[in-house]
Amino acid sequence: MTFSDEPSRVAQIVSRLFAGSSKSVVGDGFAADAVIGPGDDSAMFRLTGDVELVVSTDYVRGPKFTLFELGHLSLYDLGYYVAVANLSDVAAMGAAPLGIVTIVRYPPDMTDDEFESVLRGIRDATDAHHTTNIGGDIGGAERLILAATALGVAPAGGTITRSGARPGDLVAVTGSVGVAGAAVLYFSELHAGGTFAAQEVQEKLLASWRRPRARFDIASTLRSLGATSCQDVSDGLKLTLEQLAQTSGVGMAIDAAQVAVDPNVAVVADLLGVDALALAFSASVDFQLVFTFPASERASVEALAALGVAVIGEVTDGSDVVLVDASGRRPLPGVSWRHQAGPIGAAIGAHLRGEGTR
Amino acid sequence: MTFSDEPSRVAQIVSRLFAGSSKSVVGDGFAADAVIGPGDDSAMFRLTGDVELVVSTDYVRGPKFTLFELGHLSLYDLGYYVAVANLSDVAAMGAAPLGIVTIVRYPPDMTDDEFESVLRGIRDATDAHHTTNIGGDIGGAERLILAATALGVAPAGGTITRSGARPGDLVAVTGSVGVAGAAVLYFSELHAGGTFAAQEVQEKLLASWRRPRARFDIASTLRSLGATSCQDVSDGLKLTLEQLAQTSGVGMAIDAAQVAVDPNVAVVADLLGVDALALAFSASVDFQLVFTFPASERASVEALAALGVAVIGEVTDGSDVVLVDASGRRPLPGVSWRHQAGPIGAAIGAHLRGEGTR
Repeated sequence: MTFSDEPSRVAQIVSRLFAGSSKSVVGDGFAADAVIGPGDDSAMFRLTGDVELVVSTDYVRGPKFTLFELGHLSLYDLGYYVAVANLSDVAAMGAAPLGIVTIVRYPPDMTDDEFESVLRGIRDATDAHHTTNIGGDIGGAERLILAATALGVAPAGGTITRSGARPGDLVAVTGSVGVAGAAVLYFSELHAGGTFAAQEVQEKLLASWRRPRARFDIASTLRSLGATSCQDVSDGLKLTLEQLAQTSGVGMAIDAAQVAVDPNVAVVADLLGVDALALAFSASVDFQLVFTFPASERASVEALAALGVAVIGEVTDGSDVVLVDASGRRPLPGVSWRHQAGPIGAAIGAHLRGEGTR
Repeated sequence: MTFSDEPSRVAQIVSRLFAGSSKSVVGDGFAADAVIGPGDDSAMFRLTGDVELVVSTDYVRGPKFTLFELGHLSLYDLGYYVAVANLSDVAAMGAAPLGIVTIVRYPPDMTDDEFESVLRGIRDATDAHHTTNIGGDIGGAERLILAATALGVAPAGGTITRSGARPGDLVAVTGSVGVAGAAVLYFSELHAGGTFAAQEVQEKLLASWRRPRARFDIASTLRSLGATSCQDVSDGLKLTLEQLAQTSGVGMAIDAAQVAVDPNVAVVADLLGVDALALAFSASVDFQLVFTFPASERASVEALAALGVAVIGEVTDGSDVVLVDASGRRPLPGVSWRHQAGPIGAAIGAHLRGEGTR
């Protein structure tokens, strides 16, 4: 994503330092404009002719993931994840994947087999998304460090930013959210002596981390139906909706009855005694897309239900992002991911149970 | 650089995993081919029309740099460096800079002022190279982590790879090499109780790390004079020449008399009792360009002397890369950087003095 991971420092420092810094490159037979958009999923360049190039870069905590530290993710899984995490930002711009470049720095004691596992994960993830890892930076470091940059292309005018939502538009999401967050919460609690769910539920929870999917299968459709804004869910549904609304300068009213809670999220919520809807809205790296679109396209979007797409609300005037249910309107439920928040699973669980930070 | 930082794993694992994995993207009004080139400075894409896009990504050790740990580099300097290190790979392809995206992950105790210093360094480096930082990934980590991806564009057919050198071509370098390596060696030894050089020499040595420069001032000229291969010196002149020769499948004969030893390198070599030419060829991140070009363009290249360019040898048949001096032909002098090699300054110093590893 484009300078969007830590909202306060982006707003206070980055935006100020880089304000208005747009550059053009013109040469023999080509021209390119860098279009600055801090706060969007990817940076975007307009090139000569009919191509828009989008670029997104993300470091992933990788070996610092709670589920890796607990032994539930392999090195292969980390390689797979770093590729998808970056590709997802390109999908969120409505672009087709051009390829990725990766950074794989490894500790002195990493064996060739272990190193190859990481690279196999990256390769299989790019293969699964019909793209490729075109290069990168490999070398030593004091621990495993994983990052990547994904590139994508769209026809001129075809990229979808976070800033185009207009009052009257509808809001949709492309599938289950909260599953990855529920996985962290569940396994954190399990290792802390919590209750066991069925093996099948555990596998579904882990699959959200092991084999994530960037939604290119829907991205180009979003363009064709005139989506006005889009963002992938890498920090939970609550924060994604709030960021889309803020960037577009609008409010949103989300219909509680239309947000289907994934059954695996429901199981975890029940086992741990927290509200299922709140867990579904909480910090979670699901890589589903949240998008807004003209109300005139409602039928077209509803026809995508088989792909997991659901209309969940509408864009409103003002700036409030609220949940609407039988009891009225209230702020969105859930707990958003914050950097530096400490062990996220335990913190969210505690917060959802009203225990405060522990 | 494109999978080139750790030659043995690139050759043994990466090349095998990604062999033949080229992908094309074709859509409404655009087409793009990913051209795989492990071992080159940047990945390259051919887009619709007349644009070639080059992409390079590099992690930098940053806070783990010896000179940062010794207190000779600031956070601002690290920001400046990560930008230039990535831009240099684009220059080495003969491309013009389109922009960079950056990863800045910081530890919990980093203040806003410190964070801003890093970003100011990045901004000033991109400004100095007439380009911009278009976005990136900002957030927390357990320590400062810096990486970037640089993008550049060239006219169709205009990028210069590492593989085009032909026997009969000449070899040139764009300026002083070995200075950054001499700086590490000097300050490592200084902190270990070594001899002091003049303040002016120390400042020149540190400038190579604090204000590096990607040679875009020469990159487009290289295209116009038909350079057949090019690579930036990020691992020392010795390794750069050997890699260019290997990738092109040629040998090289470097004329010792034509390699001007930078006066600051000479001072360090003298103080520390090592051979000055060997130090000039050793591991060093100078960001000068080494390139090969048709012998018919010798006068054009020699006319660039004011920019620091010097013709230093010729491309030969076979695969030997040798230094030629009054006593005959011998392997290139110097010690190349190897990942995981431990404290590089002390190791090079010891090696150059014939002390073995200590």
